[in-house]
Amino acid sequence: MLELIPLIMGIVGMLFVALIYYLVNREEPGTPEMVAVASYVQEGANAYLKRQFYTITVFIILIAIALGILEGDIPAGSFITGAVLSLIAAYIGMNAAVRANVRTTNAARTSPKKALKIAFWGGSVMGLSVVSLSILGIGLLYLAINAFYSIKSPQQLEMALHTIVPFGMGASLAALFAQLGGGIYTKAADISADLVGKVEAGIPEDDPRNPAVIADQVGDNVGDCAGRGADLFESFSDNIIGMMLLGVAFFSLYGLNGIMFPLLAESLGIISTIVAIFLVRESVKSPITAINVSLLVAGILNLAFFYVMAVNFLGHIEVFYAAVLGLVASLLVGMIIQYYTGTQYRPVRYIAESSKFGPALDVIAGLSMGMESAFLPLIVIGTVVSLAFWIDGLYGIAAATAGILSTTGIIMAADTFGPISDNAAGIAEMSGLGKDVRRGLDLLDAVGNTTKAITKGYAMACALLSAFVLFSAYLTSAGLKTYLTDVRIVNPQAAGVELANPFILVGVIVGSTLAYLFSAMAMQSVGRTANKLVDEVRRQFREIKGLLEGKAKPDYAKAVDISTKHALKEMISPTLITFFAPIIIGLIFGRGPLGSFIVGATIAGGLLAIFMINAGGALDNAKKLVETGLYGGKGSDAHKSAVVGDTVGDPLKDTAGPSLHIFIKLVTIVALTFVAFFPP
Amino acid sequence: MLELIPLIMGIVGMLFVALIYYLVNREEPGTPEMVAVASYVQEGANAYLKRQFYTITVFIILIAIALGILEGDIPAGSFITGAVLSLIAAYIGMNAAVRANVRTTNAARTSPKKALKIAFWGGSVMGLSVVSLSILGIGLLYLAINAFYSIKSPQQLEMALHTIVPFGMGASLAALFAQLGGGIYTKAADISADLVGKVEAGIPEDDPRNPAVIADQVGDNVGDCAGRGADLFESFSDNIIGMMLLGVAFFSLYGLNGIMFPLLAESLGIISTIVAIFLVRESVKSPITAINVSLLVAGILNLAFFYVMAVNFLGHIEVFYAAVLGLVASLLVGMIIQYYTGTQYRPVRYIAESSKFGPALDVIAGLSMGMESAFLPLIVIGTVVSLAFWIDGLYGIAAATAGILSTTGIIMAADTFGPISDNAAGIAEMSGLGKDVRRGLDLLDAVGNTTKAITKGYAMACALLSAFVLFSAYLTSAGLKTYLTDVRIVNPQAAGVELANPFILVGVIVGSTLAYLFSAMAMQSVGRTANKLVDEVRRQFREIKGLLEGKAKPDYAKAVDISTKHALKEMISPTLITFFAPIIIGLIFGRGPLGSFIVGATIAGGLLAIFMINAGGALDNAKKLVETGLYGGKGSDAHKSAVVGDTVGDPLKDTAGPSLHIFIKLVTIVALTFVAFFPP
Repeated sequence: MLELIPLIMGIVGMLFVALIYYLVNREEPGTPEMVAVASYVQEGANAYLKRQFYTITVFIILIAIALGILEGDIPAGSFITGAVLSLIAAYIGMNAAVRANVRTTNAARTSPKKALKIAFWGGSVMGLSVVSLSILGIGLLYLAINAFYSIKSPQQLEMALHTIVPFGMGASLAALFAQLGGGIYTKAADISADLVGKVEAGIPEDDPRNPAVIADQVGDNVGDCAGRGADLFESFSDNIIGMMLLGVAFFSLYGLNGIMFPLLAESLGIISTIVAIFLVRESVKSPITAINVSLLVAGILNLAFFYVMAVNFLGHIEVFYAAVLGLVASLLVGMIIQYYTGTQYRPVRYIAESSKFGPALDVIAGLSMGMESAFLPLIVIGTVVSLAFWIDGLYGIAAATAGILSTTGIIMAADTFGPISDNAAGIAEMSGLGKDVRRGLDLLDAVGNTTKAITKGYAMACALLSAFVLFSAYLTSAGLKTYLTDVRIVNPQAAGVELANPFILVGVIVGSTLAYLFSAMAMQSVGRTANKLVDEVRRQFREIKGLLEGKAKPDYAKAVDISTKHALKEMISPTLITFFAPIIIGLIFGRGPLGSFIVGATIAGGLLAIFMINAGGALDNAKKLVETGLYGGKGSDAHKSAVVGDTVGDPLKDTAGPSLHIFIKLVTIVALTFVAFFPP
Repeated sequence: MLELIPLIMGIVGMLFVALIYYLVNREEPGTPEMVAVASYVQEGANAYLKRQFYTITVFIILIAIALGILEGDIPAGSFITGAVLSLIAAYIGMNAAVRANVRTTNAARTSPKKALKIAFWGGSVMGLSVVSLSILGIGLLYLAINAFYSIKSPQQLEMALHTIVPFGMGASLAALFAQLGGGIYTKAADISADLVGKVEAGIPEDDPRNPAVIADQVGDNVGDCAGRGADLFESFSDNIIGMMLLGVAFFSLYGLNGIMFPLLAESLGIISTIVAIFLVRESVKSPITAINVSLLVAGILNLAFFYVMAVNFLGHIEVFYAAVLGLVASLLVGMIIQYYTGTQYRPVRYIAESSKFGPALDVIAGLSMGMESAFLPLIVIGTVVSLAFWIDGLYGIAAATAGILSTTGIIMAADTFGPISDNAAGIAEMSGLGKDVRRGLDLLDAVGNTTKAITKGYAMACALLSAFVLFSAYLTSAGLKTYLTDVRIVNPQAAGVELANPFILVGVIVGSTLAYLFSAMAMQSVGRTANKLVDEVRRQFREIKGLLEGKAKPDYAKAVDISTKHALKEMISPTLITFFAPIIIGLIFGRGPLGSFIVGATIAGGLLAIFMINAGGALDNAKKLVETGLYGGKGSDAHKSAVVGDTVGDPLKDTAGPSLHIFIKLVTIVALTFVAFFPP
């Protein structure tokens, strides 16, 4: 009856989601002005999600039909389940976020600690939904394949498990829509709100007279919140599926337990996530302590579960060591990113200093620091891969990844906390609340910035590592030579992914360069969408009489609509390219070159992502540093330069960078899904 | 007596170098003011080269001693020969360039066509020196190993040939100094001349009152001219050496002729280079026709030589097909780059249009176009590698590369032509010549911009392909599994570079991420050096009375000295990292992971290089496009934005980007040189 545990835990998780949602929603939303502003954001977010659902539904139906014809009903069902559950998680999470934001603002009027709790709990709806729905979905599919197929041998089991893979592809497709579409939306709105509002019309940030201000707020939710949620839903699911597939290769060592292990271990993670969420209370001393304690407890509880599972369930302590390794690595990557993007360290200080010499040197400094910042995290990840493999072979690499991912729920809560506080501050500004409230919310913002560095590094490490796990699963599924450990090699005589073979080498080249094309398309989409929105905002300033004087209201909905429409339109070509490239490579060149294509896309994409995300983060914080009064403070030439740098960094850190995480996983899971159709 | 042909052709080439140098130098240098300005540039360039020689000598001696102890006298001698010949080529080439510049200016006073001839011939001194000295050096070393070693079997021949490999390492080291040091120098000088002169003091570009103006002119020579010369000297030498080593693996097919082929084919290329140089004459209709005809004739002659050699010497027509493929590919890459950086096409127009919306959107557009531009060239290179391998195995890939490189001499002439015309325009400005002269020189500049796109793509394709050839030579030398063709595999049972092995995968990760670290260091070096120079220029404006009024002269030498000192200092850490990283990886992880490290560094470095070079080029031309009057022309907000974009692009396209070419080859050749010391 072990198979029922994921189901039960998934349901328990969702019950707690409902409870937390209720607790947050029960709080007072504040003055009528605040409610009005918040409802604009809610409507905008819903309008975006609705249209996104329609667009993605077309893709889902087409791909599901294709899968149904090519692979059968269960794969098609898996695919639909993955996509739909990812969308539901995003829908629930965003709904909670756009309710928590105004309640956070309202709580900040009396108690910053309470504001913290609401923002964090609001975020934890997303976090807990992501892990619970993923486990529920995969758990159900696992029951389904056991019921539908007669499984008598590991080979049959592998074939049956392979029908779950499209779950990950569905999740991936939904994630690409959420992260790329959301990323284009949020940055286009942000850039045009700043460009026309702040620069041309000379009104402050988050001013209600700015027609793009609501779109900007909505963007925070659809990009940061729904986007990252879908990203982690996918990493989380991919790793469970990949590790289950690897479990078949390790069948002689662990039996069925090796296959059940990831599902069960992550199910237990739901318990630690719930405990950790409720540790964030008003009674705790300071906001940052509250969150730190919560993260720490979640980590320790998860390790304890891993220890018990490794010793008693698998009878193999090495899996625990690998999980520890994974958690330590994610911590290290978080610290490195904090060094490169924190205002108190050399890199950001260097960028801020460069802004004295004009915008160009500010940007150059930011880009160079972003590039430098890619070095150490990748070395850490390389070390984890090597050590985990040395400790416990391929299963060890998957276990290290599982170790990191066991904290997904609580990390996601801490991450969604960021856009909620950001929104809360915006609502305070737009509803004309006093400076006191803003000060309380600025405190939350500072906390948010610290946790953001950690969660971004976390998402990056998860994306890369789960892509490597999927790559390993691909190797075994493709019947290519696979190194289970140094000495145990499956299919030693089979073709492999041997770089000495020029066709394999070319696979790496093509995969790598595709990551550049994808990034370019994402960045250009932001530019084009922003151009459309700039025109609209200018039109409203020009045509709506009395708008600048505050006598008339701008047409927020129109701005939201334009952003939505173009963001979703722009997203289609990159999605199609990412989806079809591995299929084309696989059909023409076969399984080996497709394997190296995946490696090229993963490594080039991973490096570009971390470069972009950190360059953008560092440029953002350099601007904030100058705003504290350095080199002349706000309004100085240095500040103007730093603002340019910040804007350059925006599409890097919020559109192209995070979307690359999905790109990496999508190409890999498409290859894994269709592997049977490619020539060996 | 075939072995004597390279020697003879090398000597013939150098005699023509002397002749052309004499012909250029015999021209009138112009008015005393022009001679004075030119002599400042000459002195500055010599001061830089002198100090660079001292710095590099320390490295050369240390490495030569180490090589002498570890591998013997001949490898140490090869290394010294490679480094010294590269330096001599740069010295001769730069000396010709700083004499040709003022004579070009003077000729432009009467005849633009004559100006073109002088500029092109001045550049061809560099071009012809590079190929002649490379062939002379390798030819001599080949005679030496035949004299010193008793060679009776292919194995002995391979060991003997391996002692020539350090020639490439010497060339690589010299190239890194020239390209990285020169790149830091030129961009630091450029940025500070603009920043303090144009922006702060409000004086025009190339104004003689600007203390950094001479450093800026010197920079054009040490960066663009000496740097690219050393880059191509290395690619050219590396490919001959790599192909000779591969010849051993193909001994059973081609015998000794397969080893002699690259040396002889490239020796014949000297003839076509000389013919092509003398085709650029005053009697030709238009400047662009003159250069196009010259390039075309060189290409056709080289193909004819390849055909004769392939059929009569090797008895294997496939080698000719591969060479055709290589030449076509380099043409395609040049056309793609022209599309992405030419003012008449969509990408640059899009960037210029974005500059209307401020500097940030200009930079974002430039970066995204740079990323996009990496896609097609890499697809072309991937296709060449695949097709050449399909046609004639590994030897085919080397032959395709040899086909491209056979035009090195004339391409380098066309490339050096650029900085010479640039300098000529600067000299005209500083010596107060009239608008007529400038107009004539602007014509040359336009020609230079067109040829530059081709030569940059050319250098990139050469660097990448010769790195792949070296990688193949590494595989055979390391005794790893090597795919000579699809069916002929050397050491099929040996360990390989199998990506399914996680340690090999980690090699790719580490190699890739090192390319990012290297780029970051290069960019930061420019920033730091520029900061020092900015301080000095400001000091001179402050302390030298009457400087701005034109009554006193600035201290050019001091500015040159500061640039020189810091550029060379900044270069040391990146050089050490690039040199020691492959040694450390090889010693710790062994030959397989070192192989994948090379692949990672090559592909990541190649992608970054093309992204940076094209982003910078496109941003530069977008600025020039706005200067033609688009979106308000000079002085408009769009122009200011475009200037910021241009400055951001500067260190990308002239420092980090081209230096990555050397980085790629240096890590590979260091691995190849020391392969015997790494565990299998």
